[in-house]
Formats: sequence, C-alpha cells, structure tokens
Amino acid sequence: MKDKQLSVTAIKEGTVIDHIPSESLFKVISILGLDTLETLVTFGNSFESKKLGKKGIIKVSDVFFSTEDINKIALVAPSAKLNIIRNYEVVEKVKVEIPDKVQGIIKCVNPKCITNNEVVSTKFQVISKNDLQLKCHYCEKITTKDNLDMI
Amino acid sequence: MKDKQLSVTAIKEGTVIDHIPSESLFKVISILGLDTLETLVTFGNSFESKKLGKKGIIKVSDVFFSTEDINKIALVAPSAKLNIIRNYEVVEKVKVEIPDKVQGIIKCVNPKCITNNEVVSTKFQVISKNDLQLKCHYCEKITTKDNLDMI
Repeated sequence: MKDKQLSVTAIKEGTVIDHIPSESLFKVISILGLDTLETLVTFGNSFESKKLGKKGIIKVSDVFFSTEDINKIALVAPSAKLNIIRNYEVVEKVKVEIPDKVQGIIKCVNPKCITNNEVVSTKFQVISKNDLQLKCHYCEKITTKDNLDMI
Repeated sequence: MKDKQLSVTAIKEGTVIDHIPSESLFKVISILGLDTLETLVTFGNSFESKKLGKKGIIKVSDVFFSTEDINKIALVAPSAKLNIIRNYEVVEKVKVEIPDKVQGIIKCVNPKCITNNEVVSTKFQVISKNDLQLKCHYCEKITTKDNLDMI
C-alpha cells in the first residue's frame, strides 16, 4: 500500500521548502533561480493543506540557501518553512522572515518611477511586514501586497 | 530501504510526461499552463538519463491532454514520452510529434515581422521536423531550433 500523501519523496542532503501557497510556487522557483539549477529538484503543487487551502513543496538536493536568499521568498510566501536535510534527517527548521529592505525582485507600483523607465534596479524599505508595504527608495510611493508584481 | 530513483512517486489517474530535456522542463510547464493548474502536479528535474544527460519528469493528476496540446511541447522536448495512467497503471503510451503547423507559442525570428510589431499572433509552417525549421506565414523568414524563443 502506497502512502498517497507522499507524492514527492525524501532527499538525502539539501533543503525542503514547505507551506508555500500554491499560487506562489512558481514565483518562489523564479526568485531562487531553481529553473536553471543543475542539481536534482522536485516540486509538488496543489497538495491539500489545512492552513493554506492548497500548498506547494519544493525539494532541492545538495543546495543550502543563504538567509538573504531565503528571506526574499517571504515576499510571496510568508508562510513558508524550510527544513535543512542531512543524511535524510531534518537537522534544522527555518522560518522565512520578511526582510527590512528589498532590492530588485519587485516592481515599483508607480509607472513614472525611475526604476520603471531607466536601467535602475528597484530598492524598497519595508514599512509594514504584516500587510506588506514597500516604500520605494526613489519615488517614495508605496507598493503593497495587492499590487506586487515581480520583475 | 528507499528507492532512491523514485523521487517523484506514483499518481492514481492522470498523465506522466517523461524524458523531457532538463533545460526544457519549465518551457513545457509554461506551454501546458501547468503553473496555473489547480490539480496536484509534481515535477522533478535533473534526474540522470542515459539518453538525455539530465531529464525532467512531470506528473499531472486527473488531467489528460489533447493531442494538439501535447504536440506543442514537441517543439522544446521532441524526446518526451507520455504515459496515461488509470488506477495507478499505465494504460497508454504516447510519443510527442512535431506538428505540421504551429500557432503562437514561438516568436518569429524576424524583428520586422508584423507579429513582432502588431497584435498579431505568430503562425508557422513546419518545413523541417528533423532540425526544426519553422517558416513564418507572414514574412516567410525561417525560425530554427537555434533561435527558438517562446512568447
């Protein structure tokens, strides 16, 4: 009898990112550059989740992310949790945290902002982590969760 | 003892797409619209493959694609093979085939082509399936495997 829950199986060494909202799975993949990685990566999407409704899981063999990289995904998947795996065992659990500053990744909501018109990468100060408000360093307009567009 | 090969496990009903060249996995996902699907989808990339070097696998629960949709992925993954699954058993195997005509999906190589300058979707006749040559319906320029860009 197969375990029907276990649709993406164990990895030996690496990182498991769990509790990703389904609609953000491919954004997380893009932020972490997993689409160009040459090590073994497995993803699953639309698993049933009590908390999230539907969730995605990512398992990346032999890769351990920096805290900086991991916190970037908090913008699209604040509920995400990481398990660090060594020899098939979880040796560490990490919660993602929305960083204080965000560079790149997100577009400024203001179409007249210099970052939307010149080759200048975006830069924000996070002024609210709860409902995600990003204040643009250049034009000072506020980009929120509802108008979050990735670059 | 776990089967280390089996990093993406069985599905009950649906479609397994195997033998996708690793670098094309995300293109296949995009062509088939799997990034917006609400049924269970699992992917694996960078599995060792004797034929392809590295390959990707996609398993989509409860979805059975039309021949037309399937043949679209032949442009980026001509080696792909599909297994149709019913009650955990493979009931049919399908090879992808490069279609005779291609609409959308691919950009025309010619920057002056109307499809690159107006809201006109691309349309090609496939004049060689072996080395993939697509003749534009509008400007008659040939787009080849080496300059294949997705829309």
